[in-house]
Amino acid sequence: MSPTIPPLAGKLEGLRSSAIRDLLKLTSRADIVSLAGGLPDAELMPRERLATAADAALSHNGCLQYTESTGWTPLREVLAHRESAGLGRSVRLAEVFVTHGSQQALSLLAEVLLDPGALVVVEDPAYVGALQVFRAAGARIAAVPLDGEGMRTEAITALIARGERPAVVHTVSNFHNPGGVTMSPRRRMELARLAEQHGFWVIEDDPYGELWFDSPAPAPVASYSSNVIRLSSASKILSPSLRVGWMVAPEPVCRAVELLKQGADLCGSALTQQITADLLADTTWLAGHVDHVRAVYGERAKALVHATRTRFADRVRCGDAAGGMFVWADFTDGTDTDRLLPRALESGVAYVPGSAFAVDGGYRNSMRMCFTTSDAATLELAIDRLADAVG
Amino acid sequence: MSPTIPPLAGKLEGLRSSAIRDLLKLTSRADIVSLAGGLPDAELMPRERLATAADAALSHNGCLQYTESTGWTPLREVLAHRESAGLGRSVRLAEVFVTHGSQQALSLLAEVLLDPGALVVVEDPAYVGALQVFRAAGARIAAVPLDGEGMRTEAITALIARGERPAVVHTVSNFHNPGGVTMSPRRRMELARLAEQHGFWVIEDDPYGELWFDSPAPAPVASYSSNVIRLSSASKILSPSLRVGWMVAPEPVCRAVELLKQGADLCGSALTQQITADLLADTTWLAGHVDHVRAVYGERAKALVHATRTRFADRVRCGDAAGGMFVWADFTDGTDTDRLLPRALESGVAYVPGSAFAVDGGYRNSMRMCFTTSDAATLELAIDRLADAVG
Repeated sequence: MSPTIPPLAGKLEGLRSSAIRDLLKLTSRADIVSLAGGLPDAELMPRERLATAADAALSHNGCLQYTESTGWTPLREVLAHRESAGLGRSVRLAEVFVTHGSQQALSLLAEVLLDPGALVVVEDPAYVGALQVFRAAGARIAAVPLDGEGMRTEAITALIARGERPAVVHTVSNFHNPGGVTMSPRRRMELARLAEQHGFWVIEDDPYGELWFDSPAPAPVASYSSNVIRLSSASKILSPSLRVGWMVAPEPVCRAVELLKQGADLCGSALTQQITADLLADTTWLAGHVDHVRAVYGERAKALVHATRTRFADRVRCGDAAGGMFVWADFTDGTDTDRLLPRALESGVAYVPGSAFAVDGGYRNSMRMCFTTSDAATLELAIDRLADAVG
Repeated sequence: MSPTIPPLAGKLEGLRSSAIRDLLKLTSRADIVSLAGGLPDAELMPRERLATAADAALSHNGCLQYTESTGWTPLREVLAHRESAGLGRSVRLAEVFVTHGSQQALSLLAEVLLDPGALVVVEDPAYVGALQVFRAAGARIAAVPLDGEGMRTEAITALIARGERPAVVHTVSNFHNPGGVTMSPRRRMELARLAEQHGFWVIEDDPYGELWFDSPAPAPVASYSSNVIRLSSASKILSPSLRVGWMVAPEPVCRAVELLKQGADLCGSALTQQITADLLADTTWLAGHVDHVRAVYGERAKALVHATRTRFADRVRCGDAAGGMFVWADFTDGTDTDRLLPRALESGVAYVPGSAFAVDGGYRNSMRMCFTTSDAATLELAIDRLADAVG
């Protein structure tokens, strides 16, 4: 290392690594059952179907070159078709943009939609990946709490009444990470109405919508207004290593994102985009595959919720886990989940304390538990260990 | 579209699509021989070897999950080994970071190294992808001209003597895009010395170094100082659809880039990173493959230069094309390449006018010609057509 190492940018001082990521490094020990992760189960990813698709893509040269910054056109066609069904209208190709996972859509949108100091409304507890991006973009953050119907939209109305003017409202509309809840149709309609009335953007971040256990998620927020930019991803239903997310947005937004994508990384991978298109277009196979993932996750979710309710009774309150990957739980007896964590690790179980998702502090009695990567018996064991740690 | 579409960020007004990209859209007509592209030849990409590697990667589950933000560790190990050989020292794993093509390294480094208003020195004519990123980061740009020995480092000394303090100097050290030239060892040493003396970073952007035709490129600028951040890529020697670039940099820079990569797109593709590691580690095969690409490109480059010199004699001056993908040519007779372009397209040939690469205007008598994707006879035809257009 040079003794005169040149300086780095000043703004880096405000950034820190995600608390979840740092924690994950500690919880990879084999003797710990980790409910702290946020990963889909690799065992459920369609490896053989992916191999067939890779083989097909690599049987010709068309998957080897740079591709369009907007995404490989036939993939965008498949996505336009898929999203048309979900949104109940004909989505045009110019409204579909492929990103390097939906995290890249968030980071490019933060640049496209936000001037420094702009107000962004996020849900509290928050999806940390979004919070990090909006903070890095220099936005002011306003936190709106969740309840059983999702984001409490009346808090946005109250903000506006106080003279605030949001530029963007971010919501994980289905099976919230970390909160587990799904926004009700009534709230979706209200959020879309507010967006149109007050001229703000909504980012509907929906990586989990397909992972419903009992009944499908409600119609997307984006079905109510073109002010809503819809994000989704192949990571949770196929494989994160495809690095394929997508955005459905008005054409001017897609054009602006295209300009920034050129500077950010030129384009995505023609290879993984062709593989993704192959799998998403194989609708009969896909329906069976996603049904299987739903069934397995659903069984695990119910086992985790059941074990938690049985073991803790009214000392812990948790949702029903109707879909997605997470159960959010609140201790009602004052247990501090930050302080509990070292004891939990000693007992052989990990979770993420609620405080890691808090926008302005709080959630010290809460925790996020991920049920995707352990079977029912292991999840029961995890809850037993947690109960031991709580004492 | 909503009648009240919310606003986009103000800074977008300063951004525009790359002139080269817009031009490429016009030159895909089958009757035009395009020297305007900047793509490696897909016919030379090792499709079958890639298919074997994809098959091997997809024979187990380890390539399906999210991977580390820094890159898949075994790929970083292969890269550390490879870069150790090039740099003549033992490169540690903590100094190696995998990016989504080297364009992503540029865009993340712009955030990591630059405060708003910081001075960035670029070569003139410039690599447009770098210029775009530095401008988007709010940097002031100083242009330093190229000559046959590459970047004229005395212009940096002169800048500093005038009281300027560069934060970053960006150079495409080998087989410059668009200028074709390679920085001499003398200039490399001088640039590294200036960086240490005046405490600035050098970004050595080296996607073309392996593509030498007659003799290998000189030792990297990074071999002279740890103030030099070295970028390279699998795109030009294997395939752009792997989207694998890499950076060798001091550990604090890698750690800062890691934080930003988490926000930008979480991580790269475990699948394409495993495929890349497989091919780069297969050194005997790789040497033969890259030799073949060199031989084919070398023959094409020489055909293009020969045709240009034969057809235009002293009306055009161009370099020897000792490597890389481009020949830069200057009309000595006052021909304006912006104004020539429509006539050239009518005659069935495309190139990129020099003005597209100019930092502060100029290069109106110059053009960039790419020789990678046409055989010798087609390149001769292209120059015949160009001569017709010039008249």
